[in-house]
Amino acid sequence: MQTTPSITGRVTIDDVPALARGCAVLGTGGGGDVETGALATVRAIDECGEVPLIPLSEVPHDSLILPLAGIGAPTVSYEMLMSGDEPLLIRDEVERTLGRPVAAVMACEIGGSNGVEPAGWAARLGLPLIDADGMGRAFPEVQMVAMYVAGLPVNLVVLADVQGNVTTVRPVDGLWSERISRAVCVATGASALMTDYVMTGAQARGAATGGGASGGSGAAVIPGTVSRALEIGRAVKDGVDPVGSLCDVLDATVLIGGKIVDVERRTGGGFVRGSLVIDGTGDDRGRLLRVEIQNENLIALEDGRPLACVPDLITVVDAQTGDAISTEALRYGQRVAVLSWPCDPIWRTDRGLATAGPRAFGYDIDYTPVEELTHG
Amino acid sequence: MQTTPSITGRVTIDDVPALARGCAVLGTGGGGDVETGALATVRAIDECGEVPLIPLSEVPHDSLILPLAGIGAPTVSYEMLMSGDEPLLIRDEVERTLGRPVAAVMACEIGGSNGVEPAGWAARLGLPLIDADGMGRAFPEVQMVAMYVAGLPVNLVVLADVQGNVTTVRPVDGLWSERISRAVCVATGASALMTDYVMTGAQARGAATGGGASGGSGAAVIPGTVSRALEIGRAVKDGVDPVGSLCDVLDATVLIGGKIVDVERRTGGGFVRGSLVIDGTGDDRGRLLRVEIQNENLIALEDGRPLACVPDLITVVDAQTGDAISTEALRYGQRVAVLSWPCDPIWRTDRGLATAGPRAFGYDIDYTPVEELTHG
Repeated sequence: MQTTPSITGRVTIDDVPALARGCAVLGTGGGGDVETGALATVRAIDECGEVPLIPLSEVPHDSLILPLAGIGAPTVSYEMLMSGDEPLLIRDEVERTLGRPVAAVMACEIGGSNGVEPAGWAARLGLPLIDADGMGRAFPEVQMVAMYVAGLPVNLVVLADVQGNVTTVRPVDGLWSERISRAVCVATGASALMTDYVMTGAQARGAATGGGASGGSGAAVIPGTVSRALEIGRAVKDGVDPVGSLCDVLDATVLIGGKIVDVERRTGGGFVRGSLVIDGTGDDRGRLLRVEIQNENLIALEDGRPLACVPDLITVVDAQTGDAISTEALRYGQRVAVLSWPCDPIWRTDRGLATAGPRAFGYDIDYTPVEELTHG
Repeated sequence: MQTTPSITGRVTIDDVPALARGCAVLGTGGGGDVETGALATVRAIDECGEVPLIPLSEVPHDSLILPLAGIGAPTVSYEMLMSGDEPLLIRDEVERTLGRPVAAVMACEIGGSNGVEPAGWAARLGLPLIDADGMGRAFPEVQMVAMYVAGLPVNLVVLADVQGNVTTVRPVDGLWSERISRAVCVATGASALMTDYVMTGAQARGAATGGGASGGSGAAVIPGTVSRALEIGRAVKDGVDPVGSLCDVLDATVLIGGKIVDVERRTGGGFVRGSLVIDGTGDDRGRLLRVEIQNENLIALEDGRPLACVPDLITVVDAQTGDAISTEALRYGQRVAVLSWPCDPIWRTDRGLATAGPRAFGYDIDYTPVEELTHG
């Protein structure tokens, strides 16, 4: 896995397309389609100004970080757009509850539209965006964040919806946080903006993780992921060989190149579940790869043997353009490459795997790192 | 309708049976069965001491009143008892949010177990109980309270459940308050304790009702209802002719005396809906009365003509003992009397009828006061 130096600078309107492209790759099929998110972000930056992007190391010790993410069904968020007031309602409620100002916005999830839109929300709030997120990818449930794995207390969740309702949850743990937040989201129209794990700069850097696990950086969040999404997006756009450029920047393995010959999807319980079969072409002729999906791409199997599985990242990209294809957009006949690369080290700890390993999604297999599976 | 002078005094363990019996009568079939509520209240008073009962007029102008009620399915609350911490969690959250102490507890709803248990919750909080409530009866939805009719803002709803989760809602209006509160309640096990319309003594007395309606007392709550429930309960217990005593104390009309010959009930959407048919006996031989139910008894019909309807009160009582029978306990063959009497004047205002008149429950009939229907 390449290390990416943090970029200190600003997110401008010109950065949004590359950011969106990179977030789609990190979304592993989920996190919401980036198109409407990119439009909303361009508009917010146009109206409110460019957004300072600051590295995690520069957040003062006791300044408050406001993680933000959309929760709900992506299919709803296409059609029922946000009012634009949701970030302000959440910021006001957090400041009233904690009695002190919020200093910066962070993406809960860098994958999909949830990785793009925080730049727009930060613009509307007149706050800087932190170059970090809570997943380093996309995951379907709210407890699947590095802050939970690191043992930070989830003592405050705030949701705001398009009508203007604001709901604050003080859950007893991360799992109750998911249940109650999901119910509120569904009751208010299956699409809402939320914050959880409001934390200080010191907590985000891992100074007080309550005995939980921490990632390779020692932090309770995943640093550098906004810069990384930009870098990935630029590699896809600028490369002569986009898939090759993408593999270079991600240090990814191509699991297969081929044609989609089967797509099965069903929506239930607020999630999309299904699977995908790719028939190899070129050097991969004669091979079949099956990808299991729950919002995100979870496991890639060949002849029943896993080639990659969560929490490692699996993304299906267009074989010509290198653009990531979200689970909703997968179609029979598409020419694709399936890429996989290692997750942040925090997901490979015991608590990380208990939270988002194969068994957390109901698969009765042990986790093996993708680099062992593909080079084994 | 008789006026009941407020009793200034204390609610003791010895008062609980009469309070429970009176609340069952005011519950019009709903509000939760009083038996487990009475047991919990006796225990709380035994552990924490007797509860001062103070008239609304004695609550200082700017002291905060905490209305409390159980929300959810009565069938769940029989089996999943509260932890006892819920009132403390709610009080702490309200005091933290508003930055000042709560001075007294009030019942949101005097009908059923929600009328009995506030004495126990007040005991656990070491606070007095106000001799008033928000309905003067029981109703199924959270916006069906005098405070809503009077136009008080519903700017804060707090729910606590047996697990210890605390959820605070700032809804845009009373209807969103119902939707979100109901969803949180269902997600946490279909039984929770809640507060809404936290208000000052001045607001409760109607000093600042925001242009809404007010009751005969001019207040935004219904005063004297704890004393009234005690008085009703004592009348049922002490009378030689319990049904006659009950009619005297309630100024009620007996719509029919007879035998239950049909009960239909179905549970859906968190409510019990159904109907009841009583075949007249004695002087009422040859008559049939049908009662329509949604948690509470809503409408009494004879030959398709209403004899009484919401928001007036309709209660089915045992013909021998005068004890009210909740909708869950109705059975074929029971000998009963069906009583009806006028609601508090606040429910007869335009906004009161829009909130809890027959059309609010989906019946295409106009409201006519019970005294006109039965003497017409």
